[in-house]
Amino acid sequence: MKIPRAENNVSREIISERVALFNNTGVDLPHTTHYSIDPAATTGNIENFIGVAQVPVGLAGPLLINGEHAQGEFLVPLATTEGALVASYSRGMKAITDSGGCRTHIRSDFFLWPYMFRTRTLDAAIEFAQWCEQHFQEIAREMEATTRHGRLLGMRTTILDQGVLVYFEMNTGDAMGANMVVGAGDAACKWIAKEAPGIEPNGWWGLDMGKKAVELRTMRGMGKSVIAEVVLPEPLLQKLFRAGPEDIVGWHNAMQRCWMDMCSHGRQCMFANGLAALYIACGQDVAYVPDATNGRLGVSVAPDGGLRVTADVPCLIVGTVGGGCGLPTQKECLRMLGCEGAGSARKFAEIAAAVALAGEISLMGAVSANEFVGAHERLGRNRPTADRAEEPSVVSQS
Amino acid sequence: MKIPRAENNVSREIISERVALFNNTGVDLPHTTHYSIDPAATTGNIENFIGVAQVPVGLAGPLLINGEHAQGEFLVPLATTEGALVASYSRGMKAITDSGGCRTHIRSDFFLWPYMFRTRTLDAAIEFAQWCEQHFQEIAREMEATTRHGRLLGMRTTILDQGVLVYFEMNTGDAMGANMVVGAGDAACKWIAKEAPGIEPNGWWGLDMGKKAVELRTMRGMGKSVIAEVVLPEPLLQKLFRAGPEDIVGWHNAMQRCWMDMCSHGRQCMFANGLAALYIACGQDVAYVPDATNGRLGVSVAPDGGLRVTADVPCLIVGTVGGGCGLPTQKECLRMLGCEGAGSARKFAEIAAAVALAGEISLMGAVSANEFVGAHERLGRNRPTADRAEEPSVVSQS
Amino acid sequence: MKIPRAENNVSREIISERVALFNNTGVDLPHTTHYSIDPAATTGNIENFIGVAQVPVGLAGPLLINGEHAQGEFLVPLATTEGALVASYSRGMKAITDSGGCRTHIRSDFFLWPYMFRTRTLDAAIEFAQWCEQHFQEIAREMEATTRHGRLLGMRTTILDQGVLVYFEMNTGDAMGANMVVGAGDAACKWIAKEAPGIEPNGWWGLDMGKKAVELRTMRGMGKSVIAEVVLPEPLLQKLFRAGPEDIVGWHNAMQRCWMDMCSHGRQCMFANGLAALYIACGQDVAYVPDATNGRLGVSVAPDGGLRVTADVPCLIVGTVGGGCGLPTQKECLRMLGCEGAGSARKFAEIAAAVALAGEISLMGAVSANEFVGAHERLGRNRPTADRAEEPSVVSQS
Amino acid sequence: MKIPRAENNVSREIISERVALFNNTGVDLPHTTHYSIDPAATTGNIENFIGVAQVPVGLAGPLLINGEHAQGEFLVPLATTEGALVASYSRGMKAITDSGGCRTHIRSDFFLWPYMFRTRTLDAAIEFAQWCEQHFQEIAREMEATTRHGRLLGMRTTILDQGVLVYFEMNTGDAMGANMVVGAGDAACKWIAKEAPGIEPNGWWGLDMGKKAVELRTMRGMGKSVIAEVVLPEPLLQKLFRAGPEDIVGWHNAMQRCWMDMCSHGRQCMFANGLAALYIACGQDVAYVPDATNGRLGVSVAPDGGLRVTADVPCLIVGTVGGGCGLPTQKECLRMLGCEGAGSARKFAEIAAAVALAGEISLMGAVSANEFVGAHERLGRNRPTADRAEEPSVVSQS
Repeated sequence: MKIPRAENNVSREIISERVALFNNTGVDLPHTTHYSIDPAATTGNIENFIGVAQVPVGLAGPLLINGEHAQGEFLVPLATTEGALVASYSRGMKAITDSGGCRTHIRSDFFLWPYMFRTRTLDAAIEFAQWCEQHFQEIAREMEATTRHGRLLGMRTTILDQGVLVYFEMNTGDAMGANMVVGAGDAACKWIAKEAPGIEPNGWWGLDMGKKAVELRTMRGMGKSVIAEVVLPEPLLQKLFRAGPEDIVGWHNAMQRCWMDMCSHGRQCMFANGLAALYIACGQDVAYVPDATNGRLGVSVAPDGGLRVTADVPCLIVGTVGGGCGLPTQKECLRMLGCEGAGSARKFAEIAAAVALAGEISLMGAVSANEFVGAHERLGRNRPTADRAEEPSVVSQS
Repeated sequence: MKIPRAENNVSREIISERVALFNNTGVDLPHTTHYSIDPAATTGNIENFIGVAQVPVGLAGPLLINGEHAQGEFLVPLATTEGALVASYSRGMKAITDSGGCRTHIRSDFFLWPYMFRTRTLDAAIEFAQWCEQHFQEIAREMEATTRHGRLLGMRTTILDQGVLVYFEMNTGDAMGANMVVGAGDAACKWIAKEAPGIEPNGWWGLDMGKKAVELRTMRGMGKSVIAEVVLPEPLLQKLFRAGPEDIVGWHNAMQRCWMDMCSHGRQCMFANGLAALYIACGQDVAYVPDATNGRLGVSVAPDGGLRVTADVPCLIVGTVGGGCGLPTQKECLRMLGCEGAGSARKFAEIAAAVALAGEISLMGAVSANEFVGAHERLGRNRPTADRAEEPSVVSQS
Repeated sequence: MKIPRAENNVSREIISERVALFNNTGVDLPHTTHYSIDPAATTGNIENFIGVAQVPVGLAGPLLINGEHAQGEFLVPLATTEGALVASYSRGMKAITDSGGCRTHIRSDFFLWPYMFRTRTLDAAIEFAQWCEQHFQEIAREMEATTRHGRLLGMRTTILDQGVLVYFEMNTGDAMGANMVVGAGDAACKWIAKEAPGIEPNGWWGLDMGKKAVELRTMRGMGKSVIAEVVLPEPLLQKLFRAGPEDIVGWHNAMQRCWMDMCSHGRQCMFANGLAALYIACGQDVAYVPDATNGRLGVSVAPDGGLRVTADVPCLIVGTVGGGCGLPTQKECLRMLGCEGAGSARKFAEIAAAVALAGEISLMGAVSANEFVGAHERLGRNRPTADRAEEPSVVSQS
Repeated sequence: MKIPRAENNVSREIISERVALFNNTGVDLPHTTHYSIDPAATTGNIENFIGVAQVPVGLAGPLLINGEHAQGEFLVPLATTEGALVASYSRGMKAITDSGGCRTHIRSDFFLWPYMFRTRTLDAAIEFAQWCEQHFQEIAREMEATTRHGRLLGMRTTILDQGVLVYFEMNTGDAMGANMVVGAGDAACKWIAKEAPGIEPNGWWGLDMGKKAVELRTMRGMGKSVIAEVVLPEPLLQKLFRAGPEDIVGWHNAMQRCWMDMCSHGRQCMFANGLAALYIACGQDVAYVPDATNGRLGVSVAPDGGLRVTADVPCLIVGTVGGGCGLPTQKECLRMLGCEGAGSARKFAEIAAAVALAGEISLMGAVSANEFVGAHERLGRNRPTADRAEEPSVVSQS
């Protein structure tokens, strides 16, 4: 059983040969092989192409954002197969919009990634670390020569038992940046390995690129770290959730205590739901969702009444150029948000944080009002179709 | 700007009305609105349907698994927009297959989730916790009455400052289980709230359902916790990676040290890449990828030579019935793996762990041989199309 | 420069020879060599004895406890060199006593420690882990044969990349237990290594014994895990702290948010102050203080008014027999608490938790009233002696 | 039951009155009340003085250090009641000395602590944070006016849900610094509260001062963060531990894996043992031991043979002036190390890191050679006195 390949690896013929692998197992792929996109257009995005996953897209919103880059009402495309997700986010977005919109702020914006340089002794490590700090300008020059948009913002060294860790912080423009920084870092490290004292032969490697919860990145930043805030007026709380601010603060306290007891690193309920659905729709690297789940939900009684809710969303490693952004349906979804192409990455990140905020608001309302099971049952996947017709009323209710 | 809704919310008309929202913004959706699936079939999976995301699917493999549930060679469908991902995983799978396959083992299999019961005093909390332990059978009975397949395996109480946390561990059969356990837990808690002493009025809530890295779940288990192991013979290492076992162990040591320095909770490189691509292709809840990223990569020189590599993958919260499993392309992808429907969830989890293992092997080879940048550049998205034609040769090389 | 030793290593002569090592450096030790204890009595507690550290002991209290083992008012000896510590704890104890005392509850009581058994393959690990579970009775028998008081309560195995971790949970009676469990575990492991299938030659080790923050132990328990609770009536709060419950809850919320931002594993302010001082006074192993600092402070408005404060103190690894408990001043301090000898370990642990609670209350009052600097300055070490005479009034004020 | 107090609170009379509290309970304190120190000299160190804890001091060493501040052979006073501790550390120190000494390096040296400023909105928080960054010079001026030695090295703001965290990093000279920085921070915050825009009335607090494991401090530094390294030649390993470098690396790998499985935040075996004993002997604040236990043990085969061992010891929050440094026995112990008074804090920190290193080496040897139980039994506290006479031979063996 070998996957067929050819000179032109995206021709109809070679794709058909691959699909035919499953013929003798009785597996037909009529839907996977049904698509409007040109296989040739996927060349930089996939290998061994056989077709597409058709992931349903639903529209949530409108979501009113008063951000630094995202401003106005948005209808947000979410790609998911989980029933109730779009309705739930839509409910949260409506609450935000009815409250006058949410404020968003980008706290930091760079890629942060490490290299290891091995040294023979602690003395050599100390000397090497000092050398690096003295040659920041040259290192920046080597890195920036590999890219049009990337700028080296910072560098930090840590001396440890077998050598030195060098962390770079680089602005990546409107690209998500993983490829850019690997190229730039590689250039820098080759130059460092040639010029710097004390490194072992072949003694350096690129290390962790994320795709997991990392405290250093949550603290310092990685990609875009965004905070979104809304104040829900008390009448709205009563209407939507049949609960006052104190009820929800009480639930949040219990949640916090539970997260401590379980040793949960993330302190939010379900950022991952909305972010994964948004990332899939908009051609983002879905494997970077975990980094953002190390975020925090804040809930308090607002000074002037109502409920102040914040979503502190670290590590939104997103972009609006490169990656999956140029694929047909993905580009259409970016366009729905006014986020196509250069100049839109920060706007997109602010929208993402607002989406995360909307999900928390919706969940806290549902839980607080003890409706969680009910809502799921009405929209959920294990229900007969007859029940599902009720769905709209739930959403319009909210 | 309001999202149109109707009695029949998946009719062509209402879908068109939604799509038409973007007309006045000049956004056309020819690709998003192109699909082979019947909108009516998405009713339990999405709300406010407007179309689909077409996510390219590539084939990786063959992947030879000697598991407890997954046995034989698999061609694995991966849905992604990230160039080089499928090629990289395919390279790792080939290494596993050429080594005689990987062994997989399911260490635990249940859903673990908490409820909070508030009490007025510590004394009341102590009494309540004891009551719960004495009524395990009744609680199990209440829960199991709500489901055909779920079985309550365990319950644990923690007394804390404002009440008692009650954790349930429930087997969910072939369903991922989130909806099932919410229903069962709700039934149990309503009964407990009625029968048990000491709880405050309206004093209980369901709490965290995952979708983030949680140490209790990594330790105890959540969903399927799977370990996958392969021994790569030394000649293969040399051929694939131009490196010996010690080189790779050295890199792994540096990686470990870096993860400690960054306070990374996950100790693996890129489980998220393969799992997200597999989850999207196969209709799993992608928001559960973060839970698995708290896993561990193990690398050591094998007792009889070669390199022993393990992927310890916690919290594979997956299923083969319910959720997105019944959607057309998703069902086709499950069929490619022989994982359609009841009786297949554990098999699917073993395949997922083997996929995660393959990705680590591929990356460690690339990094160890200092080829990382090169491989990315050849396959990556920022290259002119001419370069991309070279892609097959890279993969067949490996 | 060699430390003199002799057959009788605690004779006055050999001790003098050691002290004389410093003669040529001009260092005299008149105070260190001044002690009432018999050097021979220190034989099991110290090696290369040269004298004693005279650590000042102050009395804090009275502290009223309504515990399961500790009941009544206690005057607590605290050994410290940090000015304001005793006064601060005394203030907190007074608040507890004036509120009617604190409730304490022991949630768990055992030593939890791991062994590693290396296996050649994952298959061997699986077989070995199953064998262990089938032989729990025999393993318990081997362990319990090495000790009069220890009982094996539980055993848990984890299969991982190079073998199997075996965790034991053992009750250690009134001894702190580290020595007891090492002896018992060693006996068990030697038997296991002889009888069990699949272990590599010389393939087992005892591993971590604590003396640091470990989440598994915080969750499961280690030593005594105790929770202490008090409700401070509102009038008392106003008198002591010039603050209402809400002010202090507000401060606690900020504290929680800060601990998250810093990634603090402990969620309490200063358990370590009181515990270290109590441990030194009472002959406990001070190196086990870090384990308890992974605890939690709980603060909330009490249902019937006032402020409910809890200290959740995990991992009080203490004893009242063995270790330093038999040394003269240490035994006297245990006697002051009615905790000398067998039958007193749980009582001592409850007192320790109540001490921890008192410290948090005192600090929160000081911070809340913005008096922190002032109080420190009046009692602190950088003040002229004249100022220090004012100290009593501060404490009697409170 | 009330603790007697008086105008002169350290007079013989009032001390006797306090001791007499225990008369009616039949508790005599002949040893606690036996001391050479002048109670009046304890005024800034203790309140409600009743006497002293006599903690046995043993001598460990010689310990050869090739540090930046500590240079030469040291005989280290350790105050403990735990049998085998001094012998064990002495064995490790001998190994270091026989290997030519250890290298030490101070990576950072400052106190790091936070304040919270509450703001009414996210907008106000953003404005406030910017204001702070623009007024660094003025803030530094306010702080430095309160102290002769402290210098503000850095300041960092974090915008979060209810306001802004402001972290200061301040050099504290030869003092441990907690009191100094509280005074300086308080001055700064009062000034900020007066001058800056957007803060709520009474809207600021000082927050966490440490005494627990905190990742931000482990990463950035707190107190002195020191790394100590030694290469143990192979012949010495064989002689001391009857083991080769690979054996010990194997044990270290198992240890690492276990720490991951338990979610241990510290990655070292027993820093706390040596540090607590050193801190007690030398008048340090013992409650700061937990901060250092978040450190790391590094073990690898050295490039030129032998075993390279490093102790990465964060957060040595120590000083040689202030606190308990001026008390009689404590001052004598500092003198034994040549660390009395101003100019010695960094030297003391390097010695502390070398002590921590020695303990790890001793333990790894004992465990690796499977002698752990044996060594403990020979020196331990549960043995008859006859056995204890054997103790010297064990130590001289090593």
